[in-house]
Amino acid sequence: MANLSIAQLLGTELPLIQAPMAGVQGSALAIAVSNAGALGSLPGAMLGAEALRSEIEAIRAAVSGRPYNVNFFCHSPPVPDAAREAAWREALAPYYREHDIDPAKIAPGPGRNPFTAETAELIEPLRPPVVSFHFGLPEAALLARVRSWGAKVLASATTVEEGLWLQARGVDAVIAQGLEAGGHRGHFLSHDLTRQPGLFALLPQLVAALDVPVIAAGGIADAQGVAAAMALGAAGVQVGTAYLLCPEATTSAIHRAALQGDAARHTALTNLFTGRPARGIVNRVMRELGPLSAVAPEFPLATSAIAPLRAKAEAAGSGDFSPLWSGQNAGGCRARPAAGLTHALARGFAGAP
Amino acid sequence: MANLSIAQLLGTELPLIQAPMAGVQGSALAIAVSNAGALGSLPGAMLGAEALRSEIEAIRAAVSGRPYNVNFFCHSPPVPDAAREAAWREALAPYYREHDIDPAKIAPGPGRNPFTAETAELIEPLRPPVVSFHFGLPEAALLARVRSWGAKVLASATTVEEGLWLQARGVDAVIAQGLEAGGHRGHFLSHDLTRQPGLFALLPQLVAALDVPVIAAGGIADAQGVAAAMALGAAGVQVGTAYLLCPEATTSAIHRAALQGDAARHTALTNLFTGRPARGIVNRVMRELGPLSAVAPEFPLATSAIAPLRAKAEAAGSGDFSPLWSGQNAGGCRARPAAGLTHALARGFAGAP
Repeated sequence: MANLSIAQLLGTELPLIQAPMAGVQGSALAIAVSNAGALGSLPGAMLGAEALRSEIEAIRAAVSGRPYNVNFFCHSPPVPDAAREAAWREALAPYYREHDIDPAKIAPGPGRNPFTAETAELIEPLRPPVVSFHFGLPEAALLARVRSWGAKVLASATTVEEGLWLQARGVDAVIAQGLEAGGHRGHFLSHDLTRQPGLFALLPQLVAALDVPVIAAGGIADAQGVAAAMALGAAGVQVGTAYLLCPEATTSAIHRAALQGDAARHTALTNLFTGRPARGIVNRVMRELGPLSAVAPEFPLATSAIAPLRAKAEAAGSGDFSPLWSGQNAGGCRARPAAGLTHALARGFAGAP
Repeated sequence: MANLSIAQLLGTELPLIQAPMAGVQGSALAIAVSNAGALGSLPGAMLGAEALRSEIEAIRAAVSGRPYNVNFFCHSPPVPDAAREAAWREALAPYYREHDIDPAKIAPGPGRNPFTAETAELIEPLRPPVVSFHFGLPEAALLARVRSWGAKVLASATTVEEGLWLQARGVDAVIAQGLEAGGHRGHFLSHDLTRQPGLFALLPQLVAALDVPVIAAGGIADAQGVAAAMALGAAGVQVGTAYLLCPEATTSAIHRAALQGDAARHTALTNLFTGRPARGIVNRVMRELGPLSAVAPEFPLATSAIAPLRAKAEAAGSGDFSPLWSGQNAGGCRARPAAGLTHALARGFAGAP
């Protein structure tokens, strides 16, 4: 069962998923990937209701019935903590002075929305064929509602325990998120980052422990990586970072430059940009404050206070305060159409045992 | 060149190395592995001169001319720091009281010796055919001396930068030590652990960057892991943790039990046992002090003060203060002869592209 290819499960030609990457892509990348035979993904976490609807409609209109995925976060909305917010702004104060920013005038920054009954209500008429979740799953009634229109449900596990938890709640496949992966860690049972193995260790242990198919994610950048993941028992793979330089992605010029330089060799998990650990290329603010800060407010509240620094720095051509999301292997990053990258990755399935 | 099998380089039947594991194995495991067609390794760091000589002689007498490896550490001997030692003993004080240990009576504990001119002098007449180094390399003159008797030289890299550094100094092959690996991290250019990727990311980047063959290490526990590493471009693999339950290893009963239980799912890098980060199964002292402590003395000086706690706890059947070295994938650990494990791993080479 664990060896069932996810191509059969998802109805795609290829057992390959383009990882949803909030903030650096929208419908265009998902469309290109789905039309190339893999599963394109739309990240829903940073979209308001109207944008979410119109993005899904854009995908539906462009993929000629091919499957696509919509991804959501499942965090509990945080309770704002004034003391922590103050400590956070205090930590950022030298940077505000340097950039001539008045912290009293900082507007609430872009948030990340969890999946709610309103989200389900909104997407139900659109019936996305695949829905994936990060940070666990929505509550049982909401999950049942998603399944009611026949959507296949995927979710990320960073440990064997999380994989077993997700399987017990009926997911169709589990995404093994190796520690190499870029962007937000998907953990939800424990916040202890030492529990999260690299893909070489996590993937075979999840395959051995679970009955549902396991999708490999983290550090897979080319056909050889795809073949290696399949050799370890994966039923499919999810690739994110390698898509960041595709013209269909909305990755900023600063972010694209970082991915192509030596800086991309050094990533770290950081909570400075959102409040939850996520992997990105080490930049000035990560170096100076330390990538993991005890004073950064709870996810996603850390974003507001750092957003104006990011904006000012980016306007000056600097990524010093930007989340430069990347996995530990940016070796697959080249400026090429998403269809071409998808086809290149697909060659790895032929080489798999 | 990077695809040259290390079997040709080393003169073994299989491109497979049994990882040297100081403290949990001696000549018996190395002999069994070399006689099974792979490269058995003797860890030299914890052996005195006489023991080192007699262990190498035992291997030579038993392997009928087959190749074997002797491994050494390359750290600079630390300068003792009385203040740090005092802080370290203060951190351990509650445990001394609990175990009725008088800290004034603690003898210098077992150290780890770096490779020196005396070591070279001692092993030169024995002409070990392969010598591997951890924590960098010995100085150029010493390295030249090792090469003078025709020994092939291997060394560990935890980053692309370290691989380039080793290649520039003439090693015959580089061991890509993925973050999954058990025991001591081999880093030597930077102590920043965030620089060290998982094997899925490190291996292909080293293969792309280097001309010398790259050996994959970390998280490889079975034939599927071997095949996956070869798919990522490795010229061979090094496996450690899976050998820990073999009867030829000297792994303690407490350590063996931990490797077979659920506890083995949670490892962490810790400097509590030696002063340098090494991966082991999380136990009481790692949980209570935190696995990485700023007060633990420099490698290998941390060992002395914790050694009596380990001894007392182990005498009572507890591994609360023991280094329970393990990689992130203990899935290959079964009580079987090392030859059987070696043959099982060898099946992975047949499946490699």
